[in-house]
Amino acid sequence: MVALSGGPDSTALLEALASLRRERGLVVVAAHLDHRLRPASRADAAFCEDLCRSLDLPLETGRADVKARARRDKQGLEAAARAERHAFLRRVAAKHRAAAIALGHTLDDQAETLLLRLVRGAGGDGLASMRPRAGDLFRPLLAVSRAEVLDHLKRRRQAFREDESNRDPRHERNRLRHDWLPGLERAFHGRVRAHLAATAELLARDAEALDGWARRALAQARGTREGGASVQVENGLSCAVLLRRPEAVRSRVVRLWLAEHGGLADIGRVHVETLLALCREGRGRFALPGGREAQVKGGRLRLL
Amino acid sequence: MVALSGGPDSTALLEALASLRRERGLVVVAAHLDHRLRPASRADAAFCEDLCRSLDLPLETGRADVKARARRDKQGLEAAARAERHAFLRRVAAKHRAAAIALGHTLDDQAETLLLRLVRGAGGDGLASMRPRAGDLFRPLLAVSRAEVLDHLKRRRQAFREDESNRDPRHERNRLRHDWLPGLERAFHGRVRAHLAATAELLARDAEALDGWARRALAQARGTREGGASVQVENGLSCAVLLRRPEAVRSRVVRLWLAEHGGLADIGRVHVETLLALCREGRGRFALPGGREAQVKGGRLRLL
Repeated sequence: MVALSGGPDSTALLEALASLRRERGLVVVAAHLDHRLRPASRADAAFCEDLCRSLDLPLETGRADVKARARRDKQGLEAAARAERHAFLRRVAAKHRAAAIALGHTLDDQAETLLLRLVRGAGGDGLASMRPRAGDLFRPLLAVSRAEVLDHLKRRRQAFREDESNRDPRHERNRLRHDWLPGLERAFHGRVRAHLAATAELLARDAEALDGWARRALAQARGTREGGASVQVENGLSCAVLLRRPEAVRSRVVRLWLAEHGGLADIGRVHVETLLALCREGRGRFALPGGREAQVKGGRLRLL
Repeated sequence: MVALSGGPDSTALLEALASLRRERGLVVVAAHLDHRLRPASRADAAFCEDLCRSLDLPLETGRADVKARARRDKQGLEAAARAERHAFLRRVAAKHRAAAIALGHTLDDQAETLLLRLVRGAGGDGLASMRPRAGDLFRPLLAVSRAEVLDHLKRRRQAFREDESNRDPRHERNRLRHDWLPGLERAFHGRVRAHLAATAELLARDAEALDGWARRALAQARGTREGGASVQVENGLSCAVLLRRPEAVRSRVVRLWLAEHGGLADIGRVHVETLLALCREGRGRFALPGGREAQVKGGRLRLL
């Protein structure tokens, strides 16, 4: 299943996968959500219908009420649009029993994501940006530049839609895309975007290795006694096991643990480090965001 | 020992450490190298002498011939200056039996280093940038902004020297410092520099954890047989042990191993990945930069 906006990236992706159908034995279906946020959105939907007809592919369409969602969930329009899109793609994928959902993100999107997360403040996990594969989500164009996509479409004489909101300088990503990244490439090296995307790939590998280590350490820290075989869930974590791991692993263990117990909403670096400081001191209490309270007592970190 | 250029950062650092002498029982000595690359360098040296006299601190001075070094070692002026400075600091530290060498790098330097490495292309280890402590090198001001340094000097009515070459837009770092970083802060968030420095700190933790893992994996991969206790140096690495580690660890093991055998000059990601591909295939040869040749045979990766 291809998430199709009608823009150049997803159009090129759909066209490429359609052309591989016979050779690779693929069954391809497209899904287009009309976000109804711009006057042109109806014309985008009509374009997607024409495109799929010409490629002889089934298309599932949906219409979102992003503003209602934003009001209901008390979130911004961008977050609400993402939530609506996500729910729609999941529905269509389930209906078609899709083995994979393909997204049109390119190397340029990846570079922008990394730089955006960097200026907003992120650690290695965040900077790793978008993964080429995450569960059943695939991004086959993540190593392909936007210029290559446009060139491909031109050579295939394939039309696409332009999203004029991609030019709106009120969006941070658009300022990065049209102003900062081309400027940095002129000023430094022609390959800044490719460098950023390669960096994201290396950071994703680092994050994957550290996450695996943290998952193993979490299981060990849960053991009743150090290295003990019996696992008692909800009995908190052994501070000694935690503190024997490097800082990068400790903090990930605490995050994994909190994610299982009430989530990570509003949890920042300062909260994780305070919990680890309690572990080092061997005792104390700390009120976490969201009404949870943590305590260190008898060598274990627990949620009360 | 404080590396003193006479600029605001190292002047503030020296002044701060001098003021802590009694309270902390410190013995402080300053070291200034006249790089003789700018007409003002003699006046810088004179300033350092006056400063140390006023603070009642010993000063060691040296005069470098950077151009001769650059010619001899066939390197750029910046690299030659760094090599001369490094050798000078090491000499003075040995003479005074210094327990630590303090450098004046600030949070702004850290943010610039991270961004510079990012646009040039770097993985997590490179992006981790400067460490607050590396062996006997300390950077006590790494969490302090340049604005705070200038403010401190102003309040203490402490003079300092300005290095006019810091304004030269031919240097990439200066373009970042005076143009790109302030621009990004205006366009995005006022705290971009602080975010970058915090990111560098998190990446340094990640790098430290992964390096430790890689050192342990290197020792295991050296074992004659899998997990065997006997260690035969120069007998190469077990491909099976290597391939059981995550990608991020594998590549670090290969880098550590190559660093021990002829260094990492001209070794790039492509070389490391080619060696790992040979390991997966179970056989093959590959010519590395610097005249070394690697071979996989009998389950082991060796240098011929």
